[in-house]
Amino acid sequence: MKLLKSIEEVREYILNCKNKNFSIGLVPTMGYLHEGHGSLIKQARKNNDKVVVSIFVNPIQFGPTEDLSTYPRDLEKDSLFCESLGVDVIFAPSSKKMYPSNSISTFVTVNNITEVLCGAKRPGHFQGVCTVVSKLFNIISPTRAYFGEKDYQQLTVIKTMVKELNFPVEIIGCPIVREDDLLAKSSRNSYLSNTERQDALVLYKSLLKCKDLISTGEFITANIKKEMEAIIHSVSSSKIDYIDIVDTNNLMPVELINHDVLVALAVYIGETRLIDNMTFKIKEA
Amino acid sequence: MKLLKSIEEVREYILNCKNKNFSIGLVPTMGYLHEGHGSLIKQARKNNDKVVVSIFVNPIQFGPTEDLSTYPRDLEKDSLFCESLGVDVIFAPSSKKMYPSNSISTFVTVNNITEVLCGAKRPGHFQGVCTVVSKLFNIISPTRAYFGEKDYQQLTVIKTMVKELNFPVEIIGCPIVREDDLLAKSSRNSYLSNTERQDALVLYKSLLKCKDLISTGEFITANIKKEMEAIIHSVSSSKIDYIDIVDTNNLMPVELINHDVLVALAVYIGETRLIDNMTFKIKEA
Repeated sequence: MKLLKSIEEVREYILNCKNKNFSIGLVPTMGYLHEGHGSLIKQARKNNDKVVVSIFVNPIQFGPTEDLSTYPRDLEKDSLFCESLGVDVIFAPSSKKMYPSNSISTFVTVNNITEVLCGAKRPGHFQGVCTVVSKLFNIISPTRAYFGEKDYQQLTVIKTMVKELNFPVEIIGCPIVREDDLLAKSSRNSYLSNTERQDALVLYKSLLKCKDLISTGEFITANIKKEMEAIIHSVSSSKIDYIDIVDTNNLMPVELINHDVLVALAVYIGETRLIDNMTFKIKEA
Repeated sequence: MKLLKSIEEVREYILNCKNKNFSIGLVPTMGYLHEGHGSLIKQARKNNDKVVVSIFVNPIQFGPTEDLSTYPRDLEKDSLFCESLGVDVIFAPSSKKMYPSNSISTFVTVNNITEVLCGAKRPGHFQGVCTVVSKLFNIISPTRAYFGEKDYQQLTVIKTMVKELNFPVEIIGCPIVREDDLLAKSSRNSYLSNTERQDALVLYKSLLKCKDLISTGEFITANIKKEMEAIIHSVSSSKIDYIDIVDTNNLMPVELINHDVLVALAVYIGETRLIDNMTFKIKEA
């Protein structure tokens, strides 16, 4: 496995692959890898000749009050993890290499679907994500790129960007990977104290409640959200950022569930912001 | 020469070229080709195995009151012109093919250098340009792309975008091509009546005046602009949109010329908006 830190090195590697007609699977990450990333890497390993994992904590997708400086990093552990999964290249550039100008002026923006859910709560976040992902696509020219469904909105935004800008890459979404107690895997789980770790289970529990309600014929989203809120509020460390039930395709809020929906939530447990979601396929009446 | 109208067809052609390791020169145009475009095509022909000319009147770079509907089009004449210059492929998609969604939500934006000159007068124009050029780059994966220096700001914006988003393409700027009487070649010249065509010479004359003034040691831009304005106003059909003297690199206005500058102007002759420019290299004292 190669660990490459400069854009020139990775371009050279990619050029070599392209000359041999190798397909390239890219797994873009911010590092501190866990089994969620692992499932993306395994999928990429299955479908492609070469697998590149990018590890870059992208400053421009963090808001001024967010956790950029404390975001967990462990390149050594990540390298061992990638090597064990048969990754060919880790691309781990510095911020200076990705953003050499003192002021960045070029941005890729997706409107509408970024104005809800996490996008509404984290202004500029998806612009930062789209911009860095565009850069990675242009540097690595992947055949396929893999994103987790835990960041369901991110996956939808990237799919929209790729389609509308004609990026020659196939976007593949992979299911959420959970801990044994069903907390969604996340690098940010490392922030949680023992008590908070226990409290964090309310996210998934509230989604299970939602599932129960829908299966018993409750389609009024306000009612469902009320019951989900009650579960979240059952632990004192929690603060709801949002709970939303939206159309799976355009991410617009729905009042009455009569087609496929995404139920997504972001909750602070102590100081740590966690997200989780579930999608529901609804048969038309 | 092939005339391709679908993205799939052009992608297939390009894939074939890439398999043979052919270099590809792209000349993005809005059609109604003239010798200005011709010079770009000739340069592309010299440097690349294959030359693709895109012809697409890009709706999203026109403002609501601009000349989208009347913009001159002549695909037949353009085809003959391209064929005569040894072009391999014309890519001429419909708007529906380039923007299949009812609402476009993804845009590429370059800030700062788009907020002056034409960018200040045509809000959204460069966002439309950057978005369509990104699409063309992603569809055609050119080795090199050619842009005219007549749209000097556009060339600077595209260079910035390519650098900051890491597009794997070399941007090549080509000098302004002029009519015998030195009017800059432009598709929009076809709008001009005979009298207006004559009046339009004031653009270049004002640039010549600027050149004279600088060569005789006038470095105060306000003084230069005043003299240029007088020349423009010597014909009654003219209306100045802007005359600006800016830093060649960051396009920011300068008051005193003590380094390389771009002198750029946009002038309405009757209803027709024309642009022209000249750059000056200044030796440091």
